[in-house]
Amino acid sequence: MSDEPDRRLSRRGLLGLAGAGAVGLAAGVGGTVAVDRLTGAGAANGAGVRYPFYGRHQSGITTPAQDRLHFAVFDLAENSDADDLKSLLKDWTAAAARMTQGLDVGKHGAVGGSPYAPPEDTGEALGLPPSGLTLTFGFGPSLFTTKDGADRLGLAGRRPPLLQPLPRFSGDALQPQLTGGDLCIQACSDDPQVAVHAIRNLSRIAFGRASLRWSQLGFGRTSSTSTAQSTPRNLFGFKDGTANVKAEEQNAVDTSVWVGAGDGPEWMTGGSYLVARKIRMIIESWDRSQLSEQQNVIGRDKDAGAPLSGGTEFTDPDFTAKDSGGSPLIPKDSHVRLAHPSVNGGVRLLRRGYNFVDGNDELGRLNAGLFFLSFQRSPEQFITVQKSLAGVDALNEYIRHVGSGVFAVPPGAKQGGYIGAGLFG
Amino acid sequence: MSDEPDRRLSRRGLLGLAGAGAVGLAAGVGGTVAVDRLTGAGAANGAGVRYPFYGRHQSGITTPAQDRLHFAVFDLAENSDADDLKSLLKDWTAAAARMTQGLDVGKHGAVGGSPYAPPEDTGEALGLPPSGLTLTFGFGPSLFTTKDGADRLGLAGRRPPLLQPLPRFSGDALQPQLTGGDLCIQACSDDPQVAVHAIRNLSRIAFGRASLRWSQLGFGRTSSTSTAQSTPRNLFGFKDGTANVKAEEQNAVDTSVWVGAGDGPEWMTGGSYLVARKIRMIIESWDRSQLSEQQNVIGRDKDAGAPLSGGTEFTDPDFTAKDSGGSPLIPKDSHVRLAHPSVNGGVRLLRRGYNFVDGNDELGRLNAGLFFLSFQRSPEQFITVQKSLAGVDALNEYIRHVGSGVFAVPPGAKQGGYIGAGLFG
Repeated sequence: MSDEPDRRLSRRGLLGLAGAGAVGLAAGVGGTVAVDRLTGAGAANGAGVRYPFYGRHQSGITTPAQDRLHFAVFDLAENSDADDLKSLLKDWTAAAARMTQGLDVGKHGAVGGSPYAPPEDTGEALGLPPSGLTLTFGFGPSLFTTKDGADRLGLAGRRPPLLQPLPRFSGDALQPQLTGGDLCIQACSDDPQVAVHAIRNLSRIAFGRASLRWSQLGFGRTSSTSTAQSTPRNLFGFKDGTANVKAEEQNAVDTSVWVGAGDGPEWMTGGSYLVARKIRMIIESWDRSQLSEQQNVIGRDKDAGAPLSGGTEFTDPDFTAKDSGGSPLIPKDSHVRLAHPSVNGGVRLLRRGYNFVDGNDELGRLNAGLFFLSFQRSPEQFITVQKSLAGVDALNEYIRHVGSGVFAVPPGAKQGGYIGAGLFG
Repeated sequence: MSDEPDRRLSRRGLLGLAGAGAVGLAAGVGGTVAVDRLTGAGAANGAGVRYPFYGRHQSGITTPAQDRLHFAVFDLAENSDADDLKSLLKDWTAAAARMTQGLDVGKHGAVGGSPYAPPEDTGEALGLPPSGLTLTFGFGPSLFTTKDGADRLGLAGRRPPLLQPLPRFSGDALQPQLTGGDLCIQACSDDPQVAVHAIRNLSRIAFGRASLRWSQLGFGRTSSTSTAQSTPRNLFGFKDGTANVKAEEQNAVDTSVWVGAGDGPEWMTGGSYLVARKIRMIIESWDRSQLSEQQNVIGRDKDAGAPLSGGTEFTDPDFTAKDSGGSPLIPKDSHVRLAHPSVNGGVRLLRRGYNFVDGNDELGRLNAGLFFLSFQRSPEQFITVQKSLAGVDALNEYIRHVGSGVFAVPPGAKQGGYIGAGLFG
């Protein structure tokens, strides 16, 4: 693994260099938002868009949600120690810093070096532009303890107190093979081949040190994380994430997303907590329900996405509004009401979920749903909202939570440093 | 199901109408190539691109390969008769004609009609442009017979003699749940949400009449079907499909792709035969092999895609060229040699495959590979090439064929008619 720029051939050759000027300008600003502004509102689908890897925060959180996802969760090899983890994180950092900039992995890439050695890069992204790739790393609770409570890697003293396995929620139908894990990597890009290439090469670098536990591809973002983005639709056909925390809301981002200096531990300052939930949708039941039922379940109109209390997509829902019969226009068990900050102590999340379809099940039903991802200053924010929804939300008839993970996402790495260095400091 | 244009709200509203002029010009020409020329070389990734549904041939064959795939195979309900099949094909045709033009399914779409009825369209593509969607329908051998050889639907007399289950090839590891099936639909689009929306709505229309047997999402095309397209890379990191039949090669298309007037049966004239193979790649073994091994297995250089006999990507391979030691520069068991028309009696295929990643298996290996799709005038073309490869191809060490299907793809439907009408004529 090398970070030298003098490769015989870069992954994407001259194409990759074309945008370097703009990034150079922005890198010092240290935030992905700065880059977004330079590259304009059309950042999504901009094949040439590249985001800085190094900075105060990791990219891939407030970055305008790209269109495609490959999310991967790894378990460290048995008998690993803290040095093994450190060396893996250093190697992953070096590779991620290259790939996010549109370069191939390693000094020699896919086609350089000795013909008698395996290529350092697997090659399927040769010739593709950076495509807005971000790679975001997180640490699961199991990294800090064993099932027996032992201090697995000698890092228990550095464990964030907030990093605990999520409680069981009413209605959870979690599958062990889709739940938990030591380390996660969220790869987002506007080109799925670029996201897949990144996870594949990071998996390969981890060979013998960490192995894939579960993973998920997503094909359509279900949230906007920038006011410049249009609100997409989930597989229920509804606009999703209208009230999401947006990167441009600096106060909300600071209050709700980034771990603050006093939150502790210190090495997490500037980081965040990631919750991942694989939510299977019972598509066939939903598709047979009435339009009015669908709208009442969500609490929004299907066409424009306006709350049932009226207005447009971005009108605040009025939960006190009633119809002529005295019933609330937005039902009490609707998703929008139960998830709303006003009934959850003001709690907000930054969501970055994706639609998925994993073929079909043995009954011929599409194995489809929402891969929910949210970033928050504390997992308690997600827990508050999910407790409000679980068991009560009218939507529960049409969904099953089948996978779950919670991860401490450290701050960004400094140039010359590596992701998670604070763990060992 | 209705084909009337007077919906309360079209799926994609005015956006959808913007390109109507260009399509109107081309529709009479009856071929997708004509439309491609109107919309220019940048057809892929052109969200506004739309292809005609009606015409002499089905779209989605010589159409420039779109970037995303959702392929679905259905089984007819037990005890179906020919009238059931006919009515399903009529409904599918009406829906496909709408969706490929950027409209939602049904007269009332996702948000019109009675609030006390389920929406006619599932809604997740509301607001999305046509995105080059094509829907291509095919008939499996099982439609014409039962396991016991009985004439299941009373259509045995119309069975194309060439439509037989593929023979077992050396090395086949086919899984029954990924093999065979009565009907297939290939949905290709530059937006995966548009392809998924189409298959979902066609599945829904089939409810109670046909159910999903197997299906596959693909995220990156592995072939060019137009000289205007660049050659993409498969997950082995190599350029794929360099020597593919291209739409612009009119002679090759007529000779190798379309069923001719004398080929029989008459209702297949202007159609084609589709072979689908789900090919799992043993990614981890491949990634640990030497660059020279990889290049010898494929018979091409990994960087530019030139044959190992020299030249550039599009140079014809010289199988007689030898190195100084007298060994062939292109090894005898290389993929390019064994698949080449010169060793297969001149046989060529039009390939339209896609990369896939279906998460990971229980051993932490990426469940990834190539979803091979080829269109040919006769399945014998595929069988010839696959017999040449099976058991001999050096690539076999790194791949497993796990799914398979063969389908008769009827010609395009006439305006006012429906796909497969000739079956019942």
